[in-house]
Amino acid sequence: MRINENFLKLQSSYLFSTIGKKVKEYSAANPNAQIIRLGIGDVTRPLPNAVIGAMHNAVDDMADESTFRGYPPEYGMDFVVSKIKEYDFTARGVDIDVDEIFLSDGAKSDTGNIGDIFSVDNVVAVCDPIYPVYVDTNVMSGRAGDIMPNGRWSKFVYLNCTAENNFLPELPQEKVDIIYLCFPNNPTGMAASKEELKKWVDYANKNGSVILFDAAYEAFITEALPHSIFEIEGAKTCAIEFRSFSKTAGFTGVRCAYTVVPKELKCGDVSLNSLWARRQATKFNGVSYITQRAAEAVYSDEGREQVKQIVEYYLNNAKVISEGLQQAGFTVWGAVNSPYVWFKVPDGMKSWDFFDVLLNKVQVVGTPGSGFGPAGEGFFRLTGFGSAEKTLEAIERIKNANF
Amino acid sequence: MRINENFLKLQSSYLFSTIGKKVKEYSAANPNAQIIRLGIGDVTRPLPNAVIGAMHNAVDDMADESTFRGYPPEYGMDFVVSKIKEYDFTARGVDIDVDEIFLSDGAKSDTGNIGDIFSVDNVVAVCDPIYPVYVDTNVMSGRAGDIMPNGRWSKFVYLNCTAENNFLPELPQEKVDIIYLCFPNNPTGMAASKEELKKWVDYANKNGSVILFDAAYEAFITEALPHSIFEIEGAKTCAIEFRSFSKTAGFTGVRCAYTVVPKELKCGDVSLNSLWARRQATKFNGVSYITQRAAEAVYSDEGREQVKQIVEYYLNNAKVISEGLQQAGFTVWGAVNSPYVWFKVPDGMKSWDFFDVLLNKVQVVGTPGSGFGPAGEGFFRLTGFGSAEKTLEAIERIKNANF
Repeated sequence: MRINENFLKLQSSYLFSTIGKKVKEYSAANPNAQIIRLGIGDVTRPLPNAVIGAMHNAVDDMADESTFRGYPPEYGMDFVVSKIKEYDFTARGVDIDVDEIFLSDGAKSDTGNIGDIFSVDNVVAVCDPIYPVYVDTNVMSGRAGDIMPNGRWSKFVYLNCTAENNFLPELPQEKVDIIYLCFPNNPTGMAASKEELKKWVDYANKNGSVILFDAAYEAFITEALPHSIFEIEGAKTCAIEFRSFSKTAGFTGVRCAYTVVPKELKCGDVSLNSLWARRQATKFNGVSYITQRAAEAVYSDEGREQVKQIVEYYLNNAKVISEGLQQAGFTVWGAVNSPYVWFKVPDGMKSWDFFDVLLNKVQVVGTPGSGFGPAGEGFFRLTGFGSAEKTLEAIERIKNANF
Repeated sequence: MRINENFLKLQSSYLFSTIGKKVKEYSAANPNAQIIRLGIGDVTRPLPNAVIGAMHNAVDDMADESTFRGYPPEYGMDFVVSKIKEYDFTARGVDIDVDEIFLSDGAKSDTGNIGDIFSVDNVVAVCDPIYPVYVDTNVMSGRAGDIMPNGRWSKFVYLNCTAENNFLPELPQEKVDIIYLCFPNNPTGMAASKEELKKWVDYANKNGSVILFDAAYEAFITEALPHSIFEIEGAKTCAIEFRSFSKTAGFTGVRCAYTVVPKELKCGDVSLNSLWARRQATKFNGVSYITQRAAEAVYSDEGREQVKQIVEYYLNNAKVISEGLQQAGFTVWGAVNSPYVWFKVPDGMKSWDFFDVLLNKVQVVGTPGSGFGPAGEGFFRLTGFGSAEKTLEAIERIKNANF
C-alpha cells in the first residue's frame, strides 16, 4: 500500500503533546514541584448540577428496555437541536433551521473533518498565529503545500495578526477560496466587531469563498459584539460555523459540539449542507445519548444560570492574569471577551525559551505563541481555565520573579 | 470555493437512511401497523448493570472538582486500554501493546477515517456484498473511480461473495493495495477460519497490501474460529483491526470502539501506527470520560457475564430467524457465529421488491441485500437484534405469509 505522504510533512507531534511531554519530564525530575498548568485550554470546574442530573437520568434510561436508546440520529436528536436553535440563534435574532445544525463529538473533529467536502485544490487563507488544527488538517489533505524556511506553508495565504493591527487581520490581496476565522480568537483572545466580520462576509460573497468560522469561545464575549457570524447579513451564503460545549459548560471530557451549515451556502447548484450531511451520515454515527441529554440540560433555566457562573469564573481568572501581567510590566491582549491572555515575552527571548524559563523558574505552564505559527514568535498564551486559587498563585509567582 | 466532486458520485442517501424513510412513510400511512424492525443492526437490550453502575459513578466524578476530568487523552485512558489488551488479546494468546490500541467513538468513524492515512492512488479490493461505509468513504476520497452500469465502481477490485463460495471470497488475481475484510461478516453472517484468514495474511504480506479487518461482530463467534486477525501469524505486518462495543455490550447509543494498528505494520520505514496516532491527535479529541468508564466496566467479572448473556440472547434470536426461514422454505446463511441471517428472496423477486412486500404484507423491516452491493441482489438480511418476543412474532408472520 502507499501512505498519504502529506503526513510526513507534519512535525511529528502536536503542539499540546509536546507541552505535555516537557511538563512530564520536568515533573519526573522535580517530583516536589508545585506545577500550575495554564497552558492547554482545558477546563477545571465541575459540570453544572443541571447537567449532572440530566446525565444520571439518561444513564437510567439506558438501563431499562422501554427507555433504552440505540443508534442516535447522525445529526443530533430533536430535543437538543431544537434547544440550540432557540437559545443560540433565535434568541439572538438569527434564523437557523434545525436541519442546518449538526451535533458532533467536538469542534476539533468538525474543523478537521470539514475538509472532506472541499476539493484539494482550494486556496486556503489562515491567520498567523492560529489554532494548529486548521493548519495540520490541511497539510494532511495536501492543501498546504510544503513548509518553507520561514516556517510557513507554500500554498497557504497568510493573514498576519500582529500587535500593529490589534490581532485583527486585513483582507487578503488575492482571491482565496477557504478562510479560517476564529473569534473570540484562540490564541490571541481578541474578538471581532460586526463591522469587522461584515468585511469578511462581503469579501467571501464577492469572491465565492467560504468562511470556516470557529465560535467556540462566543460565550466569553462580554462586550456588544456578535456571538455568531450569522448575525452578519449575507453570512448564510458564505459561512460555516463551529460551536462547542467544551468551554462553556465544561464538556472537554464529555465531548459535544455542533456545526452550522446553512442550506443557502452553495457551490454552483450544490448545497454544502447536503455534502456535510452525507459526510456525517457516512463517517460518523452520532453523539452518545447521555451526552445529548447533558447538552440539552445546558439550555434549561438552571443550566444556563450555572453555565453563566462558570464562564464568569474563568473570565475573572483571565482578568487576574491580564492585570497581574500588566503590573509585572508585560504588554497584554485578550481576556476581556475571552478566557485567553496573550502577551509579549521579555525582549530577546523566543516563545519556547520563555516556556522553559516559566516552567523552571516559577513552575507555571503556558503555551508558546510560536506554537500557533511563525507570527506568534515572541508571544505567549496563558488561560483563565485554571482554579481561581492557582491562577492567583501563578500570577504572584510571575510578579515576584521579575522577568 | 470548489467542493470535493467525488461526493456528487454518491447516491444521495445512505442505505439505512433510505430504509428509515420508507418505514416512516409506511408508518404515517398505516398508523396502526405493528411494525417489527429487524433491518438496521441496532441493539435493543438495555445496558448491562455493571456498565450502568460505572456510568453513574463517572457522572458523579464529573460533579466534583477533585475528580473532574477534562480533555481525555486522544488514544484512550490507561484504565480501559489496559483491559482491552488483557481480555481481548492477551487472553487469546495475542500480544498487542497498549500504544497499538486507539479508542474511538465508533467503528464507523474509524473505518471511514482510516482512509486519511493512505494515498488516493491505492487499489482497493472490496467484497460484494459489503458494509456500504467501506465503499462510500472510498468514493468520497476518489479511490473508487466512477460507477458503472452494473452498479460497481471502476477502480475497485471486487471480491465476489456468493452462495457458490459460501460467501468466503477468493484471493484477487491482480495485486491490490488495500483489502477490506469483515468476519463474522456483515451482511452475510459468515465467519472465517484460521486457514481462510491465513490465506489473506500471506497474500497481503507477499504483495505489500494492508488488510482493514472489521471484527465488530467477533463476540458472536460460537465455533472454534479466530476472533482477531492478530491470531494469525504474520498479521501484525499487514493488518489493522476494528473492534466495537456496539454489538457486544449494547453501546450503539453510547459510542465506543477501538482500532488496533500494530507498530510492525509499515510502509517502507513509516509505521502506520504513528500515522494513525497523528491523525487521531489532530482530528479527534478522545472519548467521553463517562463512556470510557462504561467500556472499562464491560471487562469486569460482572460485566463480562452480563455481556455474554446479551450476546446469547441475540444469537438465540438469530437462530429463531434462521430456523423459521428454513421452515418457510428459504435458503439461509449466517446466524451461527453472527447476529445476522442472510437468505435468498423468492425467485423472480429483487431485494427491494422483497423489502416492500415484507413491509406491506407482514410489517417486518429487513435490509435488502442489494443495498450491500450488486452481488447482494436477490438476497436479504434480517438481524437478531430485536426483542425475543418480536423476533418470534416476525418469524410467525413470515411463515404464515407463504412467500
